[in-house]
Parts: sequence; structure tokens; C-alpha cells
Amino acid sequence: MEKKRKIRQISELGEFGLIDHLTSDLSILNSEIIKSVGDDAAVFDSSKECTLVTTDLLVEGVHFNLIYSPLKHLGYKAVAVNLSDIYAMNATPKYITVSLAISSKFSVEAIEDLYEGIKLACKRFDVDLIGGDTTSSLSGLFINITAIGSAPKDDIVYRKGASKNDLICVSGDLGGAYLGLQLLEREKKMFLSDTGVQPKFDGYEYIIERQLKPEPRRDIINSLKQAGIRPTSMIDISDGLSSELLHLCKHSDLGCKVFEEKIPIHPQSVLASEMFRIDSSLPALNGGEDYELLFTVPISKKEEIEKIKDVTIIGYMCKKDEGKYFIPRNGQELELKAQGWNPLL
Amino acid sequence: MEKKRKIRQISELGEFGLIDHLTSDLSILNSEIIKSVGDDAAVFDSSKECTLVTTDLLVEGVHFNLIYSPLKHLGYKAVAVNLSDIYAMNATPKYITVSLAISSKFSVEAIEDLYEGIKLACKRFDVDLIGGDTTSSLSGLFINITAIGSAPKDDIVYRKGASKNDLICVSGDLGGAYLGLQLLEREKKMFLSDTGVQPKFDGYEYIIERQLKPEPRRDIINSLKQAGIRPTSMIDISDGLSSELLHLCKHSDLGCKVFEEKIPIHPQSVLASEMFRIDSSLPALNGGEDYELLFTVPISKKEEIEKIKDVTIIGYMCKKDEGKYFIPRNGQELELKAQGWNPLL
Repeated sequence: MEKKRKIRQISELGEFGLIDHLTSDLSILNSEIIKSVGDDAAVFDSSKECTLVTTDLLVEGVHFNLIYSPLKHLGYKAVAVNLSDIYAMNATPKYITVSLAISSKFSVEAIEDLYEGIKLACKRFDVDLIGGDTTSSLSGLFINITAIGSAPKDDIVYRKGASKNDLICVSGDLGGAYLGLQLLEREKKMFLSDTGVQPKFDGYEYIIERQLKPEPRRDIINSLKQAGIRPTSMIDISDGLSSELLHLCKHSDLGCKVFEEKIPIHPQSVLASEMFRIDSSLPALNGGEDYELLFTVPISKKEEIEKIKDVTIIGYMCKKDEGKYFIPRNGQELELKAQGWNPLL
Repeated sequence: MEKKRKIRQISELGEFGLIDHLTSDLSILNSEIIKSVGDDAAVFDSSKECTLVTTDLLVEGVHFNLIYSPLKHLGYKAVAVNLSDIYAMNATPKYITVSLAISSKFSVEAIEDLYEGIKLACKRFDVDLIGGDTTSSLSGLFINITAIGSAPKDDIVYRKGASKNDLICVSGDLGGAYLGLQLLEREKKMFLSDTGVQPKFDGYEYIIERQLKPEPRRDIINSLKQAGIRPTSMIDISDGLSSELLHLCKHSDLGCKVFEEKIPIHPQSVLASEMFRIDSSLPALNGGEDYELLFTVPISKKEEIEKIKDVTIIGYMCKKDEGKYFIPRNGQELELKAQGWNPLL
């Protein structure tokens, strides 16, 4: 017989009780920590390197839908998207703080599931949870994570720094997360219209996972380090390739040319694009949430870059007055425009 | 003729437009900043001191009510409560990140007001806004601020560290913020029941301000430093004196005795307590949001402490088995219990 999990109201534990409960099994991974959870502030020894800070707020109904986002995946993703920002600076994430606003519909066990995902991501990427705030909301779940990382000053890579003729590279493949979301949305509608229908994701497991459980690309950062390559500029792809390319161009005061035929797209993304009757490069350009790395390297590093697994050269930087163009397989150059997701619309 | 302020929808600017608009006039105060707003993460040189991190999430309808909280005050308070946590570690706040989730009822101008308060607090306390996230919410306003500070390792004061016989000290006066809130709540009800009635706060300006615009006690931290006193333990009073005293006792593994007659209470708090027919020490013990500092010092520092403006000795730490007691003017010792506000009830 399956053992039933006891479900408790959060008010039974209270704020300090809930925090104690959720953080009781945290072991410290980074030896620089002097004081973690449990005082007015966390303290760490930062004397060896520069410190980096990034923060992201995920809102129920805006950034995620609990109908198809399991809470454990959601916790993992909330951490992952922040770590991705630290890796995109060529730095090492080390600490996070987690702020939660929870409506009364959540049980202690639901928040445990969320925390399980948060802790899993922390463990996988050697990151310590060092603080946070837990409070109630009148409706919905809000997750704000601040990630703190470190790096030697000269290792850090910014959005600015690219030079003319630098190669534009991307990790992994693009567009999958957006297409996964479209599939989830479609199945949600079918599920809600007829509760007898079970979602069908056969053959699309990869793009569903891209949406629900993105992986920050620590592996790419490590591969580049091992190959002795420091990117000249870098950003993570959260809003779609177009939007991120425009950021690199703007900050580096350059133009760019990217080639459709070079953009890495997963076979499942191609299939899903066909099913939704859209050009498969559209989700790559404008879809967002892939959390791959977009970076530039000097053309002298071409051979070394080509040897790195899961990195593709998709174009090159050019002078600003040469424009910012996407070159399709057939036809005219298209000016790049940021059509990524606008969270304020 | 009064010039009308143009009101714009946030969607007119978009996320990046809004962020650019709100952060365009930020000047950098801390020279350790290498990269502020505008990349995947902010970067600062942390090589000289330890780094401290704290975070707080304020939720509309739970932590604030826009009927009586002007947005500028709210922005100021959201920063202030975080800086208070850094000061409570005997450290210097240096940076903040600001995450906002905004419902569609807010205009660009409303968010400008909020940011004006945020920037005012930053300016007053020499803190730089180095990053954030701005997104939408389906309902209500959510403000998550992460404050980052620094201090030499040996200067940092924790909740643990007090010794038997250490004097318990408190800055400022207690209970005002809670009583200010009660007044605001009462006037809100009257205002809502009859729109002709204007709120009356004559004679209660101080406690209203205590609620709406608390001041983190940098001055006390500086006074203590000047007097050569390093507290043995410290915490800021956000949940009421009882709750915070119990934290110091728990972390320092001690008991305590505090005396009602010593607890500093402002004349306006005494008057308001009389009006609400409650004992004026109750808001001090259990009210919360005063953001004063509660700390312990060795008894050998008694004379120096007595010379510091706005600091009051209210009791002493004792052995754990002697208990944690509040000693009223007349009558029996009362065991201290945390009856502070529970955000999860």
C-alpha cells in the first residue's frame, strides 16, 4: 500500500518553522561561507575574487503555469535561470537567496517539492542557499532568486568587448524551449476542455524538458576554459537569439551577420515547427528561454572552437554601419529585430 | 495653472525601456563597482572585505496597503528594511538589487514614484542600485530587494556572541510603527465608510512616519564605532522586541531579563496606546517594524554606552536556566514569548 504523504497547512509551522524545516538539511558547499541562513544577513569571505550579482523574479501565471510545471521542476528552473546569468559572465555561481510569496492554496508539502528542485539545482552546480524571505501572497506564487558568483576580475566577460570579425558562437540548440511551451499550452487546452484526454508528448520529450527544466551551460564555460579561450563578449539566451544578438551589438558598438543554415535546431524542434506550421528558425530567433550561451571569439580561435562539443559558429560581427542581419537559406538578408517575449505586455 | 503629469502605460516602454528610463539617472557611489545595471550580472570588487547579503519581499495587501502608503515612501521603506539588516550585522550596506512585479493598474509614473523613494534611500545611505528584474503580476505589487554589504571579518556582529551579564541595549524608541499602523488602519476604515471624512493625524505625525518611513540606524552603528564599542550580539527589531530578544537568547544560548520601566517609548506612542486602551509596552514587545537595533555589550562598557545618544539599556543577559523574563513595573515576572507578526497566518 502506498504510504500517504501527510499534508500540512503552512500556518501550522509559521515563518521561522517553515524556514527551519526547509533549510534543516542544507550542507555547506562553499568554504568561504562564514554565516549562512539564520542571521540578519549571510556572510561570506569574498577577498580573493570579484563578486557578481544577478536576480530574477518568476510570477505564477506570467512566467509559469502550475497546471503543467511540476513544483520540483519549477524550483530547479528558478535557480537555473539565475545561474545561467552568472555563467554568461564567465564566472562561477556560488550562492543564492530565495524569496517566496506563497498563497494559502499551497501546503507545506508543495513548498517542500519546490525546495527539492531548488536544492537539486544547488547541489548539481555546487551552489549554497544562504538566505531568503518567505511570506504570503494574496494570490499566486512568486519566486525571486538572487544568485551571487565570483571570478577573477580579468576572467569576467561582458556584453561589450566584441571586435569586428569576431565569430559569433552559440551553445546547444535553439527554439526548443518555446516549442515545448506551445505543446504544453496546446495540451493544457485539450486537457481543460475534456478531462478524459491525457497529454501526449511522445517524441517531444526533449523540447518539453527544454521548457520545464533548462540546464545552465557550466559545461561550455569549462570547455572554453580548458581550450584556453576567453570569449570577447557573452550573454545567455533568455529572450531569443535576435534580442540577445542586438544586446551584444549595442554594447560592443558593432553590427552582425548570422546565417540561418548555421543555427543549431534539434530534430524535435524541426518536427514541432512543422506541426505548428512555422519556420523552425522563428522559435530560435524569437522564442526565448533556451538558456544557451551566445558569445563571440576572435577569428584566430576558429579551429579550437570547432573542436568544442556542442558549440556552433553561426556568424560574425561586423562594423556597425554594415547593419545587423539574418541571412536566410534562400533570399534576402533580413534586418534583425528583437521580437522576444515582453514580460510587461 | 498646474502642469499635468503625463501618465503612460508601462507597456508603451516595454521591459528594457522601463528599466533604461528608471535607471538612466543613477550615478555610481561606490568605487568598487566594475559593472552595474545592464549586463547579465552586476560586478564589484570585493577583495578587501567580507560580503554580506540579505533579502526581503514586500507584498501588496500583506506588507503594505497602497490606500495609505505613498509609493515614494514605500520605495524608501523597502530599501530601509534591508539596509537595517546589514547595519544589524555591524556592516556597511553598499549595493541593492530591486525586483518588481507590477500589475497593469500601475502607470510608468507610479513606478517612477516608487523608484524615487528607492533612489532617495540609496542616496541617503550611499548605496548603489546595481541590478534587478522588472516584470508583470496578475494582481498586486511585489517588491523584492536584496541588499549587499561589506565589513572586515572581525567587525561583523552576529545574533550569537552575547555573554552572561552583558547589558541589553536598544536604539530609539519602540512600538511607534505598530501604533502608526493601527491609526492608519482606523482612518482607512473611516475614509472608506464615508468618503467625506479626511484622515486626522494631528499629534501623531511621529508614529505615522515610524510606520511609513522607517530609518535604518546607521547613526547608532557609527556612534558605537566612535566609542570603540563592538556589540557582542545584535539584531534589528522587525518583529517586536520579544521575538528579537528570543533570537539573541537562542543563538547565544542564554536567558535574559528586561525591565518594562527601561523600555523607551515615545510620548505619541503612550498617547496612542491610551487611545487604543492598550498597555504601551505591548506594541513595543510585540508590534514590530520599528527597525531599531537591539544589541548586547559587556557590562564593562556601561559608562560609554550611557553616553551614546538614543541608546537605552533595558536589561541584561543571564544564564539560560534563569529563563527569559520581562519584568513589569508592578507585579510578577512574565516569561517572554514571541507574539510578533506572522506573515504566514
